[in-house]
Order: sequence, then C-alpha cells, then structure tokens
Amino acid sequence: MKLHLDCIPCFMEQALRAGRMATSDEKQIKQILDKTGEMIKTVSMQSTAPEIGKIIYSIVSNVTGNQDPYKSIKQRHIKETKDIYPELEKIVANSKDKLLTAIRIAIAGNVIDLGVKKSFDIVKDVKSILKQEFAVLDYSIFKSQLEKTESILYIGDNVGESVFDKILIKELRKSVKYAVRSIPIINDVTWEDAIASGLDEVAELIDSGCKSPGVILDQSTPEFLKIFNKSDLVISKGQGNFEGLSDCNRQVFFLLKAKCPIISNHLEVAEGSIILKEHKS
Amino acid sequence: MKLHLDCIPCFMEQALRAGRMATSDEKQIKQILDKTGEMIKTVSMQSTAPEIGKIIYSIVSNVTGNQDPYKSIKQRHIKETKDIYPELEKIVANSKDKLLTAIRIAIAGNVIDLGVKKSFDIVKDVKSILKQEFAVLDYSIFKSQLEKTESILYIGDNVGESVFDKILIKELRKSVKYAVRSIPIINDVTWEDAIASGLDEVAELIDSGCKSPGVILDQSTPEFLKIFNKSDLVISKGQGNFEGLSDCNRQVFFLLKAKCPIISNHLEVAEGSIILKEHKS
Repeated sequence: MKLHLDCIPCFMEQALRAGRMATSDEKQIKQILDKTGEMIKTVSMQSTAPEIGKIIYSIVSNVTGNQDPYKSIKQRHIKETKDIYPELEKIVANSKDKLLTAIRIAIAGNVIDLGVKKSFDIVKDVKSILKQEFAVLDYSIFKSQLEKTESILYIGDNVGESVFDKILIKELRKSVKYAVRSIPIINDVTWEDAIASGLDEVAELIDSGCKSPGVILDQSTPEFLKIFNKSDLVISKGQGNFEGLSDCNRQVFFLLKAKCPIISNHLEVAEGSIILKEHKS
Repeated sequence: MKLHLDCIPCFMEQALRAGRMATSDEKQIKQILDKTGEMIKTVSMQSTAPEIGKIIYSIVSNVTGNQDPYKSIKQRHIKETKDIYPELEKIVANSKDKLLTAIRIAIAGNVIDLGVKKSFDIVKDVKSILKQEFAVLDYSIFKSQLEKTESILYIGDNVGESVFDKILIKELRKSVKYAVRSIPIINDVTWEDAIASGLDEVAELIDSGCKSPGVILDQSTPEFLKIFNKSDLVISKGQGNFEGLSDCNRQVFFLLKAKCPIISNHLEVAEGSIILKEHKS
C-alpha cells in the first residue's frame, strides 16, 4: 500500500511520540523532528509506511542513543496480556466456534499499537472485540485453506498482541513459523519478545530480516522470503504488515484492526473495524 | 506564547490542509510538505505559532501561485453569518445583560477557524455557546475598564467571526478601531473582508501590518503599534492573536474559544472552553 499525503503529518507525530518515549530531553526531541522534517523531501509517494517508519525510528535511536525506547512498556504489556491469557483460553474452549473466537482474540491484541495515536485499554478492548462484528470476514476461504495446509507462516506485529497470537496458533493445529522483527522498532515483536510471550512453545520462531514496523519483502532475508513464498498459508497481523504486504504476489490472510483513516478508506471499512481479509496473489 | 513540541506535527497538518485548499495537484501539495518539513529545522522553540504560520502559508502561495486559497469559503462564511445576524441582534436586545450576550456571540464566531483541525457548524455552535459557562470570565474588570475608556482597539481574527464582532462593537458604544491582517492568510479577516462584514459601519478599519495568522508586534506597522500602545482598551480575538500577544507589555482582554490542547493547557482550561481573560501589563 503506497503512501497517502496524510501519512506525512502522521510521520511527524510518530517521531514526536517515539522521541518522547526515548528521552525527556526536549532539545533532542526537537532534533528528531528537525531530521524527520528534513527527511520528508526524500520520501517518494511510491514508498510504503513501514519503509519511512524504519527511517524515523533510526533517527530516534541515533539522536537519543536509545535503541529500545519501548522496552519497559513492552514488558508491561506482556505481563498484562499474560494475566488475562488463562481467561481467554477458557473463552475459546467454551465457544461454539473455537477457531473464530481465537481469531477474534488475536485481532483484539492488535489494539496494542504504539505507532498510532489511539489510546487503548487491553482488557476492555478485548472484551468489546469479542462481540464486535467483522467488517470483512473471509472465514470460509480461510478455513478451507487451513484444512489443506501443512505449513503456516504467521507474521507477528506488536508485543502483547503476541501473547494472544499464541492462542490462535494453538487453535490452528498446524506447523507454524512465527516471524519477528530483526531489531526493536516501536513496540513490534522481536525474537526476545516472542520468547517472553511464550511463542516458542507453539511455533518455530524465524527472523524476518526486517528492521521496519511492517514486513518489506525487498529488505527481508532470503531465508524468510523462501518461507514466505513456500508456506501453504500466510497470516499477516496488523497495519504495518498490511501496508508492507498488501500488494504482494501471493495469497495472504490479513488479520487486523483498522486504526487509521487511510487504511480504513483503502479497505473501504469504518475506522475501528476488525478484519480477516484474503489477499489474492 | 512560545511554541510547544506538539505544534510541529500540527504545522505539517496545517500545510497539508492549506495545500489542499489551494490546489488539487498532489505533486504541488507534496512540494508544500517537503518545504514545510525542511523549514522545521530553522524553527526556534522561542518563536510563536503565528510566525511559523506566516512561513507555511507563504510556502503554499509560492508553490501553488494561489494567494487566497480560502477566498470562496470566506465569502460563504460571511453569507452564513449575515443570514443569522438579525436573529442574534434580537437575542442581544432581549437579553438581561446585553454586553455579556454580545461578548458570547463574538466568542461564538471564533469557532470559524480553518487553521485548526476541528470542524464546526456555525448556527449550532453559536446556539450552544450562548448557553456555555465561561471557563475564565474577567467580566467585572472588563466592564470597569470599558466605562473609563474612550478608545478601543479591537483585533480581528477570522472571517465570519468578523460579522459577529460587529454585534459586540455596537454594544461597546465607544470609538473602536478594528485591526485586520495585511494580506489573506488562512481565513483571517483582511481589509476587504472587514468591509464585506460591514465592520466599516461601526468601526474605523486599520491595517495591523501583519501577514501572519495572529498579530506579531515586531512585524506590525509603527502606526498600528502606536494605536496598540495608546488605546485605553485592547480586545484581542482568537487563538492566533493570543499566541502572538500573550506575553506583551500592556493590558489586553483576550476573547477566544480554546480549540487546541496546547492553548487549553497554557490557559489551564478544558479544550473547547470559552474565555474572556484579562492579561495584565
């Protein structure tokens, strides 16, 4: 998905938000905004948002020296999501359609996104998403694909959400590879975070090779690309991966909550919608 | 009032909004964003927002060649406000405290601000502001100052709001000079707009010398400065003039609706509050 002009002021907001997360030094934050502002003229409207996100968060790291500004907040989100994990497992076990309920829970986790402006309340939002209607629900196609599937690539998004991904992965009952970011970027799930989330107990962890808040195939490792192309089923979580992969040449199932007006418009759904969408090759 | 870091992403939003108002050519709008982004590093945090606003809107004019992107919308707002003017005059005439009601109407007009993100509905907003409690109301000081006043300087803000200013100016029952911007900037009131609003019937129009969306004393004409310093009473309308004048060395009565979180915080009021505030010298 290509950039929209509205993404540009949003980049400045992201830079400010990440800057404040990384430091309390207002001069450094102003430097981050200066460098982000200067970078705008180099941005092609043919880029995707994760490509620019990568540049912004590297500016934040370079200026502040803080390589993982979201570290403590990620730890808190893992704790909070693990606290409600047993209750959510029970909800899945007691539901009529266990797979669909697990999908809902995995999408509910997608509210934990610190790259967007919206605030959230994990427990409250999960409960409301369990009742929310899907705006796009390609469930029968997903189920039929899942039945004939041996290998699944599951591309992670945010930390905390990752704990809920575990619930869905268990429910998929197939061999799953879980792809993580190569470095800390916003609150996206890295190898270390995936282990802290307990994902190594249910999936084989793989490094996407991406240092951006969303998979960019051109920047992925050859190993990841091979898995991406060969897997029977690919599940992509969240907005960043959607922005990176929405024009790719294979079938992908996108699971996300549409939290920004540009993505909602692109998907032709209302802001806040939950989505399970098949992208065809 | 000095800049806040949050003003910087807001500048990019203003550039985008004004760019879209001036042209539908996306490449030109991108150029406006590029130039605005590049300008950020030259911005001192000791500046005021109107100083930066002036630069942004000159970028918009230079890139698009459109010197008055808000022209047709300003004409529409004058028509809409003139349509409800007779009704508002009746409300003043029938009210217990005519002056206070006229002040409320003048503040109500301050919703017509195209420099901020909020949308508005003139008729609906006026009616609700007529009932809204003031968050700051230095009314007795204002009245006592008005009683001993011979000369008033009234600094205008937005077009449309200007039509409502006429109601207050009539109710002040003193000699009033009404200051306008020197050139079209956002939807701020210029000489031409003041005449279209009928302000020349109740006040002497004067040019502030300012090409910014808010008075900046350093950039005003000597004639304006003399009037500013010598007038018995100065009334400043809106956020832009507040940002420009909140640190000045004379008494000013600020009449505004606090529409942005930075200004609300600065004034220690909730967003959306209406205010009549005495600034002491």
